[in-house]
Amino acid sequence: MIRSFAFTTQGKLHSTDLQRFLMPTLLSDTNLFLWIDLENPSIEDAKFILEGIFHFHPLSVEDCINESQSPKVEEYSPKEEDKFSQYLFIVIHGVDYSRKDGVFATSELNFFLGKNFLVTYHTVPLRAITQVEDMCVKGTLGVARAPDRVAQRLLDSLVENYKPALEELSIEIGEIEAAALAHPSKETLNRILSVKKEVFHLRRIIGPQSEVLARFARGEFKLIRPHLVPYYRNVSDALYHISEMAQSYADSLTGILQIYLNMSSNQTGEVVKFLTIITAITTPLMMIGTWYGMNFKDMPELHWTHGYMIAGIVMIVSTVATWLYFRRKKWF
Amino acid sequence: MIRSFAFTTQGKLHSTDLQRFLMPTLLSDTNLFLWIDLENPSIEDAKFILEGIFHFHPLSVEDCINESQSPKVEEYSPKEEDKFSQYLFIVIHGVDYSRKDGVFATSELNFFLGKNFLVTYHTVPLRAITQVEDMCVKGTLGVARAPDRVAQRLLDSLVENYKPALEELSIEIGEIEAAALAHPSKETLNRILSVKKEVFHLRRIIGPQSEVLARFARGEFKLIRPHLVPYYRNVSDALYHISEMAQSYADSLTGILQIYLNMSSNQTGEVVKFLTIITAITTPLMMIGTWYGMNFKDMPELHWTHGYMIAGIVMIVSTVATWLYFRRKKWF
Amino acid sequence: MIRSFAFTTQGKLHSTDLQRFLMPTLLSDTNLFLWIDLENPSIEDAKFILEGIFHFHPLSVEDCINESQSPKVEEYSPKEEDKFSQYLFIVIHGVDYSRKDGVFATSELNFFLGKNFLVTYHTVPLRAITQVEDMCVKGTLGVARAPDRVAQRLLDSLVENYKPALEELSIEIGEIEAAALAHPSKETLNRILSVKKEVFHLRRIIGPQSEVLARFARGEFKLIRPHLVPYYRNVSDALYHISEMAQSYADSLTGILQIYLNMSSNQTGEVVKFLTIITAITTPLMMIGTWYGMNFKDMPELHWTHGYMIAGIVMIVSTVATWLYFRRKKWF
Amino acid sequence: MIRSFAFTTQGKLHSTDLQRFLMPTLLSDTNLFLWIDLENPSIEDAKFILEGIFHFHPLSVEDCINESQSPKVEEYSPKEEDKFSQYLFIVIHGVDYSRKDGVFATSELNFFLGKNFLVTYHTVPLRAITQVEDMCVKGTLGVARAPDRVAQRLLDSLVENYKPALEELSIEIGEIEAAALAHPSKETLNRILSVKKEVFHLRRIIGPQSEVLARFARGEFKLIRPHLVPYYRNVSDALYHISEMAQSYADSLTGILQIYLNMSSNQTGEVVKFLTIITAITTPLMMIGTWYGMNFKDMPELHWTHGYMIAGIVMIVSTVATWLYFRRKKWF
Amino acid sequence: MIRSFAFTTQGKLHSTDLQRFLMPTLLSDTNLFLWIDLENPSIEDAKFILEGIFHFHPLSVEDCINESQSPKVEEYSPKEEDKFSQYLFIVIHGVDYSRKDGVFATSELNFFLGKNFLVTYHTVPLRAITQVEDMCVKGTLGVARAPDRVAQRLLDSLVENYKPALEELSIEIGEIEAAALAHPSKETLNRILSVKKEVFHLRRIIGPQSEVLARFARGEFKLIRPHLVPYYRNVSDALYHISEMAQSYADSLTGILQIYLNMSSNQTGEVVKFLTIITAITTPLMMIGTWYGMNFKDMPELHWTHGYMIAGIVMIVSTVATWLYFRRKKWF
Repeated sequence: MIRSFAFTTQGKLHSTDLQRFLMPTLLSDTNLFLWIDLENPSIEDAKFILEGIFHFHPLSVEDCINESQSPKVEEYSPKEEDKFSQYLFIVIHGVDYSRKDGVFATSELNFFLGKNFLVTYHTVPLRAITQVEDMCVKGTLGVARAPDRVAQRLLDSLVENYKPALEELSIEIGEIEAAALAHPSKETLNRILSVKKEVFHLRRIIGPQSEVLARFARGEFKLIRPHLVPYYRNVSDALYHISEMAQSYADSLTGILQIYLNMSSNQTGEVVKFLTIITAITTPLMMIGTWYGMNFKDMPELHWTHGYMIAGIVMIVSTVATWLYFRRKKWF
Repeated sequence: MIRSFAFTTQGKLHSTDLQRFLMPTLLSDTNLFLWIDLENPSIEDAKFILEGIFHFHPLSVEDCINESQSPKVEEYSPKEEDKFSQYLFIVIHGVDYSRKDGVFATSELNFFLGKNFLVTYHTVPLRAITQVEDMCVKGTLGVARAPDRVAQRLLDSLVENYKPALEELSIEIGEIEAAALAHPSKETLNRILSVKKEVFHLRRIIGPQSEVLARFARGEFKLIRPHLVPYYRNVSDALYHISEMAQSYADSLTGILQIYLNMSSNQTGEVVKFLTIITAITTPLMMIGTWYGMNFKDMPELHWTHGYMIAGIVMIVSTVATWLYFRRKKWF
Repeated sequence: MIRSFAFTTQGKLHSTDLQRFLMPTLLSDTNLFLWIDLENPSIEDAKFILEGIFHFHPLSVEDCINESQSPKVEEYSPKEEDKFSQYLFIVIHGVDYSRKDGVFATSELNFFLGKNFLVTYHTVPLRAITQVEDMCVKGTLGVARAPDRVAQRLLDSLVENYKPALEELSIEIGEIEAAALAHPSKETLNRILSVKKEVFHLRRIIGPQSEVLARFARGEFKLIRPHLVPYYRNVSDALYHISEMAQSYADSLTGILQIYLNMSSNQTGEVVKFLTIITAITTPLMMIGTWYGMNFKDMPELHWTHGYMIAGIVMIVSTVATWLYFRRKKWF
Repeated sequence: MIRSFAFTTQGKLHSTDLQRFLMPTLLSDTNLFLWIDLENPSIEDAKFILEGIFHFHPLSVEDCINESQSPKVEEYSPKEEDKFSQYLFIVIHGVDYSRKDGVFATSELNFFLGKNFLVTYHTVPLRAITQVEDMCVKGTLGVARAPDRVAQRLLDSLVENYKPALEELSIEIGEIEAAALAHPSKETLNRILSVKKEVFHLRRIIGPQSEVLARFARGEFKLIRPHLVPYYRNVSDALYHISEMAQSYADSLTGILQIYLNMSSNQTGEVVKFLTIITAITTPLMMIGTWYGMNFKDMPELHWTHGYMIAGIVMIVSTVATWLYFRRKKWF
Repeated sequence: MIRSFAFTTQGKLHSTDLQRFLMPTLLSDTNLFLWIDLENPSIEDAKFILEGIFHFHPLSVEDCINESQSPKVEEYSPKEEDKFSQYLFIVIHGVDYSRKDGVFATSELNFFLGKNFLVTYHTVPLRAITQVEDMCVKGTLGVARAPDRVAQRLLDSLVENYKPALEELSIEIGEIEAAALAHPSKETLNRILSVKKEVFHLRRIIGPQSEVLARFARGEFKLIRPHLVPYYRNVSDALYHISEMAQSYADSLTGILQIYLNMSSNQTGEVVKFLTIITAITTPLMMIGTWYGMNFKDMPELHWTHGYMIAGIVMIVSTVATWLYFRRKKWF
């Protein structure tokens, strides 16, 4: 699906669903700003628009079409020949955590940001895109005056959308902690380790995004007007905050793993204690019983009048004494 | 609550509880220095003062009003138009450790520091603010001569207030260590891990604060007069000292965890030893007793005159020997 | 084996299997570009061509001939005397993971890249070389116009060939994880540890390659024309992606090791549980049986009418009760 | 105690125990160099000398008087007004390891180093001070010609005094290792962990000292004459060597901890082995004894002529076989 | 022992065993290059030559004579007075691993490298020195033309001599791995930990050497002629390669330790399994035997015609069933 918008520099919507042959004309009109959003287009369409109309460098077009790129920002400025446009090419990732699989799905968003155009390319529908399109079309906040402002809003939305994923994660970690304390099982270990892996994965996702955003926050690019740099810095700060939360999740999980392992080795300890108690408590009876089960011809105790009673009393007393001994040692 | 003060450049209190319409006038008087403290104001009030009167950048106002920002310092200087003031925007965190929850609560303090004004914004009452207000109003120490001096005092107070939290922590770590040595239980493990998490958290809090303070200590900002830089360096040193203590706490806790885990696995070892001793010591009796409990027609020992006595002596001797054997091996 | 090609600057094949005495002449023709590929040549041949014809620095020739160099790129430019050529000397490694040994074999590829020549040197046949030779000879893609473009293609192929190795690894890790969960044995541990070592090895291989490629991506070398830098950057990005995958493998393996160790200690726990259950369940029978095996003259229960039946019932009831107790405690 | 010396620039002692009113005069004499050593002076005395006579910055005076500062070096040069002197303020720590407490005590030494004066401040008597005073007064080595040379000597002495502490530590680690191998007990674990903590502590102490000394070694300060920089570099190298030793101690302790934990879990393993051997060896006797203790009416073996003898032989043979089996498996 | 050589700038040997009074004369002859090798000289000799003849800075002379310096390179250039020579002072370490002690012995080599002289100082005979002396005297390779070339050869030899030590280590690690898998014992653990410590030690030795060599590889020193820099880079690369091998040894040892610990805890697991099997398999016999050992008056089974046979069959069947059960569970 291809959506296209032309805005005036006052942020008003000029026209939508632009026909392709019109695009070059509109592009050359410095009073207009074009935003083309390519959502999972056919490769021919994409190539026609990106290379044919906007004259982007073939490598960035290739990076754009191939998924699974690392986040990056590259500045292209026409050098020898006038063939290519001047633009920033940005690859950034949104994140989506589905608790069912327990896996972070990242969705790639590619930007081509020029003086008076913004081209976005993505294969799956993105909430951030829809939100910002709404904003621009409805003219609220007046963000649609220039492509660098719209791009900032898109980045902001993307980063904001990390937060629900983090909250899901936070809830899951809470559940796991409870499980580790209540009834540690093999499944608990698996959950701990898989969530830990996801948190590490998340940190590895955030790392390069941060670097990209930091370059904007430092105002490295001439295509971003200086008075917008604080807004980009804001986005960068938000991502920093998220990466800090991810770090604290990693710490929590390390702690939970420690608890789990301890609980699990404690269980064996408890079982051994139980075995020892049984053995110890039955020992007096077994000793007396076995001893007087002997068939020696001449065992005087066996013929005492109260022999059996004495044996019984000795047995009961020693058993109770053993029991009390364990009680006092707080074994149960 | 909004408190406002105007001081002369001699550090004398000029007027308090300034009326809003007067602020712009007072602000333009270069012989005065204004300090406005906004404690959990309504959003309208805050916006009116921060944007309407002081002309701060909307983004720093937004950062100020939204909690949970990372510590930072940003320099704003008016560029194109004269719309915004020249000021430093500082976000810094105080810390408060309540032993009940075992959680570090951080409270955010926002500063706007200009040539002749200081605006502070916080949502909860802060001891640092009260202390410095007292100092300024009572005119002791003559700190109220300029906003950069007052800001330094505020930072100093904030950092000083980390210390009681650290002491609480230190006491708690001592208690946990004692518990881990005396009677390691599941609760001990939980306490170790939760305090460890808090210490890690504390280190993560201190990290970015240090970076912010280091920028002051290096004298990066023109709004801070050079002869005050050593004072800022002092605050930065104090924080460094605190972060070092946090590091040493983390080391202690790692050691305590090791002790705990060892104690806990030792317990199982002790139980197994106990079981082995019982089994070994009863073995002679059980062997003799079982053997002579057999019903073979022709077992000569059973008919010996002193058969039973000999069996008893053998049993006692072997049992005592086993006992002594364990004693010598220091099993108990 | 020595293969040699001369291309025109239009990327057309001019001649192949160049005779050695012709090389200097062809080399001085600025309309041609020579590519000499030395595949495991005799040392004399190599020295003759590298030193005699191309005038490379003896040290880079030595590095080239000796295997097991670290990846590197060095710029040689003639200084005092005109003796040496101007060229880049590049050492880079391809990777080949054979599941049989579970070891990453690296194969070294040496480049000498000049204005109008490319000399490649390797001891084993490399797929990357064959692929790019095909491309050049068949004239597809027009890459054969200049040595810097061909070199980029070679690097690209080398990096691409890392991917099957990574996939092999990924499959193996999956198998190991299944094994660790299903029946953890000593062999599983060995496999975990050896694959982990290989992943660490892979990361150590990738590290320096990345640094070399990063220098190209930054456009550090004058011999690489600026408009090719994005292509080199592409190769560098691909390698970064690979190193990220290696990192995630390392994380997986750490998790699997944790699972294995836990499974293995769980097994002992289960065995102890089993032992305890047997002991506990047989305890009532053993106690009653031993007790009434005593030979006291006067044991009234032995003479009760239903004595034996009562003993039997007590024994069965206690045994069943013990059984139920363990059931309720979920021991089996 | 306050000691004061005036030396001529030839390194000769000019006068000692200077009276306070004379100090300013002597200070203004460029042919003299003053060294004032303040050992635990009263605060008034300290303030009088440091602020009144030498005109140091109040912040460095405050840092000097308050203990527990981080090591640092700060350069003060008079700017606006001529009020303050030009000097370097240095805080450095000596170390003292007492084996009784097993704790590194650090003692702070503060320097004020000017063109022609050196003021040292410390609260406890320091061996380094005494050594260097002796050297200066006796005129050996001619170090007393200038304050930067004396300061270097002091630093050198301080760093030298780290070595006995390290040797104490080394001896202690040796003892602990022996204990961990011979009879690992809870006390051993405590000693390992507490010495480990001290080594970490030591490394944290050395870290910032190194940074301070490195600044001298780089020749950053104008007050240190260039031809003395190699001497400062020497001190810095010595400290580097010490920090390397501390690192190797940390490695040793990690190894010892591993040994301890292994020994401790081995002990349990040995106990279990012992239990298993007892159980296994007594099994044949118990089986035969219990079986032929049955009271079945018709058990032919009981009436065989050599029944008892055969039972005895079977029992002895199986017991010896079991015994041999364990011997062969090297269980004891 | 003191060896001395004078070479012409054509690399020919001019004279050896120079008399001391001649040295200054030869030194001032710019057509000659002197190499003095001091092997464990008396301190007076060393001082006479180093200070008296070559005018080196007393600090580098002191560093040279005192052993156990960290590797370093320092540039001395005469400043104020012409007293000192211009030279590089280099401290570097060779390594020697003796398997008997399992300890890396490092031997220090000190260089003084000037425009037309090279002074080497070492306390033990070094193979690197002998090798390079041979090379120079025999005039092979023409390295004796200049001191910077000879110095490079010496460094090269020193680094080459690391390799046998590494191979020893590699063999030892292989043996330890086999031992850990075959029969893990306390000695194995000790070997693992002590070799690990040595590998860490080796890495700590290599670290600073690398830094020193890297400075040469970057061409930092004017005394090294630019066209020799690639040769120094070569030495630096070789050391990098060695440090990489050390890293891979460290990884191996971590894996072996893991195997050892697992094997050791597995052993206990096996013992417990054994105990459980014995207990379980004897249980049917013990239960039946104990039960029918009771002396109740009226136990009908005892009087059944085939009572004993039935008991025997039940016992054998249950025992075999238990046996098969464990077989199926793969316990043995």
